[in-house]
Amino acid sequence: MSANEKLCQLREHMSRQGIDVYIITKNDPHQSENTPDYWNEVCYMTGFTGSAGTAVVTAREAGLWTDGRYYIQAMLELAGSGFKLYRAAEPDVKDFPVYAKDAAPPGGTIGFNGRTFSVAQALNLSNLVRYKRVTLKSDCDLVGEIWQNRPALSKEPIFDHDVKFCGASRGQKLEALRQKMRERGADIYILSSTDDIAWLYNLRGRDMPGKVFFEAFASIDYERAVLFTDLDRTAEVRYILSRDGVILKPLDEARGYAEEFCRQWRDGKPVALLNPEKTGCGFLQALAGCDIQHCTPDLTAEMKAVKNETELANLTLVNIRDGVAMVRFERWLRENVQSGKVTEWDIARKVSELRGQGENFFEPSFPTIAAYEANAAMMHYTPKEQGCAVIKPEGFLLVDSGGSYYDGTTDITRTYVLGAVSEKMRRDFTLVLKSHIALARVIFLYGATGTNLDVLARVPMWDNLMDYKSGTGHGIGFFLNVHEGPCGISLRPSGAPLTPGMIITDEPGVYIEGEYGIRTENTLKVVEHVTNAFGRFLKFEVISYCPIDLNGIDAGLLDEGERRWLNDYHALVYQRLAPHLTASEQLWLAEATRAI
Amino acid sequence: MSANEKLCQLREHMSRQGIDVYIITKNDPHQSENTPDYWNEVCYMTGFTGSAGTAVVTAREAGLWTDGRYYIQAMLELAGSGFKLYRAAEPDVKDFPVYAKDAAPPGGTIGFNGRTFSVAQALNLSNLVRYKRVTLKSDCDLVGEIWQNRPALSKEPIFDHDVKFCGASRGQKLEALRQKMRERGADIYILSSTDDIAWLYNLRGRDMPGKVFFEAFASIDYERAVLFTDLDRTAEVRYILSRDGVILKPLDEARGYAEEFCRQWRDGKPVALLNPEKTGCGFLQALAGCDIQHCTPDLTAEMKAVKNETELANLTLVNIRDGVAMVRFERWLRENVQSGKVTEWDIARKVSELRGQGENFFEPSFPTIAAYEANAAMMHYTPKEQGCAVIKPEGFLLVDSGGSYYDGTTDITRTYVLGAVSEKMRRDFTLVLKSHIALARVIFLYGATGTNLDVLARVPMWDNLMDYKSGTGHGIGFFLNVHEGPCGISLRPSGAPLTPGMIITDEPGVYIEGEYGIRTENTLKVVEHVTNAFGRFLKFEVISYCPIDLNGIDAGLLDEGERRWLNDYHALVYQRLAPHLTASEQLWLAEATRAI
Repeated sequence: MSANEKLCQLREHMSRQGIDVYIITKNDPHQSENTPDYWNEVCYMTGFTGSAGTAVVTAREAGLWTDGRYYIQAMLELAGSGFKLYRAAEPDVKDFPVYAKDAAPPGGTIGFNGRTFSVAQALNLSNLVRYKRVTLKSDCDLVGEIWQNRPALSKEPIFDHDVKFCGASRGQKLEALRQKMRERGADIYILSSTDDIAWLYNLRGRDMPGKVFFEAFASIDYERAVLFTDLDRTAEVRYILSRDGVILKPLDEARGYAEEFCRQWRDGKPVALLNPEKTGCGFLQALAGCDIQHCTPDLTAEMKAVKNETELANLTLVNIRDGVAMVRFERWLRENVQSGKVTEWDIARKVSELRGQGENFFEPSFPTIAAYEANAAMMHYTPKEQGCAVIKPEGFLLVDSGGSYYDGTTDITRTYVLGAVSEKMRRDFTLVLKSHIALARVIFLYGATGTNLDVLARVPMWDNLMDYKSGTGHGIGFFLNVHEGPCGISLRPSGAPLTPGMIITDEPGVYIEGEYGIRTENTLKVVEHVTNAFGRFLKFEVISYCPIDLNGIDAGLLDEGERRWLNDYHALVYQRLAPHLTASEQLWLAEATRAI
Repeated sequence: MSANEKLCQLREHMSRQGIDVYIITKNDPHQSENTPDYWNEVCYMTGFTGSAGTAVVTAREAGLWTDGRYYIQAMLELAGSGFKLYRAAEPDVKDFPVYAKDAAPPGGTIGFNGRTFSVAQALNLSNLVRYKRVTLKSDCDLVGEIWQNRPALSKEPIFDHDVKFCGASRGQKLEALRQKMRERGADIYILSSTDDIAWLYNLRGRDMPGKVFFEAFASIDYERAVLFTDLDRTAEVRYILSRDGVILKPLDEARGYAEEFCRQWRDGKPVALLNPEKTGCGFLQALAGCDIQHCTPDLTAEMKAVKNETELANLTLVNIRDGVAMVRFERWLRENVQSGKVTEWDIARKVSELRGQGENFFEPSFPTIAAYEANAAMMHYTPKEQGCAVIKPEGFLLVDSGGSYYDGTTDITRTYVLGAVSEKMRRDFTLVLKSHIALARVIFLYGATGTNLDVLARVPMWDNLMDYKSGTGHGIGFFLNVHEGPCGISLRPSGAPLTPGMIITDEPGVYIEGEYGIRTENTLKVVEHVTNAFGRFLKFEVISYCPIDLNGIDAGLLDEGERRWLNDYHALVYQRLAPHLTASEQLWLAEATRAI
């Protein structure tokens, strides 16, 4: 069925059910960043494959809203779909709820699926339409009604994540969480976020590639800790969960359980805690008998973002292993690029294959971005086997990849200079490095957030009247989501102060549509620096070990401090990796990390 | 009556009225930054004179919460008062609402004055105590009950602010405001913020020195615009207000008017807009029949922050006049410091006297900070006539001053080197300049806020393991508040993007307790720079014209760009001021602004 036919059918269902405006999200019921195919209604309806997007359909119009990372990609993928692209981050573009509100006639109805439309989205929309006599209908599933051959949900088994990797037992985590619940006066905590659930119960799954968690809800009170999930997947962990006092229940009992908890409460209304950003608004009905309190982000978010000593020690080891794979990959690339036969797809496969030769490797932490020349200007382009670019010994190749290892998650981007490049390309490569260094070497006072620090990486760009349409960095989970809150480096407001033990990326870039893309990404660890009369100073420590291509750098554009940073970093890379390399690899690395 | 006796009496009243915890604010009913003495209950009770502070009293304890600007001052002023200092900005210090919540016994009562305790504060507290069975009592006035010889409210006349100065008529401003109200679906707008009311109605008053507005509320709907104020003060403006359709009513009728508006509404509940940060929680009762919608900041905040063409043209002229006064002041200072007889008080008087010789001067825009040596480490120290420091020809003198002119408001700080200073002092002076320049010269993308940019000024400090306990800058009103939102430069979250026409200060500093303080402050204007494929770039233009003391600068610590910025700035200062100076002043200025 073509996108236009789907749109046509959807409009028939809308008209039959009296819905004037229908909102389609790409979210699963847990607002996961990566959506299992089963839940990606936006992709099914519009063909847009990006990780962020919402569609709105009326009788006459259909639009897709996405952010700057995906403008170019969305333009290409939406062609002929009947959906118009709305560049959500730009001034004067209405955001989708305002568009939906304006599109609804007085007395009309806006529909959406309450399983996947979050509490926060529903509250926002309900505030917006307050004065319009517009009805919000949350128990729709119009895309589900027309979806033929809908992909299945995952049946992969759920498995235990050993304490030797993650450093804290289920019991310890539950105890710490209940302490936080007590401080908030909560009686029950409904947890919808799948990575938080995986972290809390030391469990992992594999709902989709690069997603090591599994569809679930959790309910925690002071007597019980319940995990709601597909019981067919729990054979491996049933015994250890029962041993550790975690109760297993089927996924579809979550709402009923919450309802029953409220009903049995004897002393007024129980206080139920939930994260409105992560919980489907359909849950509100089940909790009608509770005093609902919001917590954004989830109480577990900071707990899992601040890595413990075991996790930090593991992360150093895992990044050394990852760096060894990256060195082997670059040598392979240099040897094979001359053939004129290597494709982006080959590259993505090779880098995963080399990671897979290391210890404790589970899978790539996300689909590898191997993007040659103009493809790299699409910030989150991933090559497909058919029709992807063939690499020639010229221009830039951007490779953004990482591994989900049992003992930690990695994420690294290098841009390789494959042959002659113009002066402008070298200038831009060097600018990206300057931006990267400006963030990596900052000393900052405790209390500063990524919202405060982002500008450091951006000023070298702004000085040259350039910008990149993304944040500068994101938090990383531990054998979990490769994008993990609550910390991040972006201009947008964030309440989470950078705290020792947090892991964050530093990945500024330059993206020239139709020409090339450059990104240099390392992973940083927040560490203590000095505490004195002025306060508690923190800094970053780089934990990615991989050479930055010296062929791209115009050393004349670096100041003394930047040059020193680069040389120190390269010395560290050599020191960390050399013991794990062969003699010829060591020779190669010494050259690649030579001081300039 | 001593502070201890007051505390004793307050506790008697608390005990008699069954109040376990009593919260005392320094706010007037409009949450003005500067509080008329009549309303400053914190100052009366504790002796603390800073502009930000809240006290909490229980049967056994009494505390005062203030921020980093006032730690040193509060420590001195609270000595012997019975109030303990809580450093509100520091980690691990409970903020006052949490303290109050924890201090209240289950079933107990927390009291405060609903006229001066804001809606936002009340909602926050009510959220906090939700699980404690604690009663909040908002109709108390315990400090009022014990306050003997309470200062009077101002009786100064209210006067018209001519359109030739402010560039837009009452009618134009009301029309623009009603357009914004329509967009929000509001039926009535209750405005409590006195500077917003003064701006909207082009009126000024003089409730206290440096406060050119007057106690008032306003109510705006689509038929009426009402001003509630002390009618005895309105003789001068009664005619023009009536001509322009603004209805005058007594101050104490504001709540009743709002109540009546709701009662007369025929079509459901009217939507009432108010700013919870600025409106006393006592108002909620009067609006019980409305659908209350919050707007923070007020709709008028951005309108008045973005100066119009007339205001911007006036601001250039007023800052030239201000710079001339500052040049004359510095010459006077240099000539008189040798006498060893000039005091901080003399300096504060002299700088105002010289401003007063210029056109359109109304009064100082705030009490001048003239702070010598260690006094300058107290960030908002103001000299008193008796007992202030005598200036010697050595060390640093910090002078932070400004003028309220009919055609604009100025704010400038210079730190003068009066004689020999140590290498450390010169390093710190130069650091402050580097911080100042880093912000002043930034090119930034539209959308960036002061929260994003603050770090630019802070990094030169952080690199040296130093910090200043304040924001880097604040917005300035136009013949209004010298501190004006919604824009500002600080690490704290702010939602207001810097927009062309906004006026903001740039004032980093170094404060060494017991030794010295350094601050260099200019006023900046946000202007367009370049719009290209990457976005809309803005920059700052300095509009303060006054030399920065070259004797404090260690040129070896400036990089080439910083040196160029300083020389360009000094060339501009000379070019702007010279035409208004005598020949001998020109000679002096040429030397003071020489290129280095």
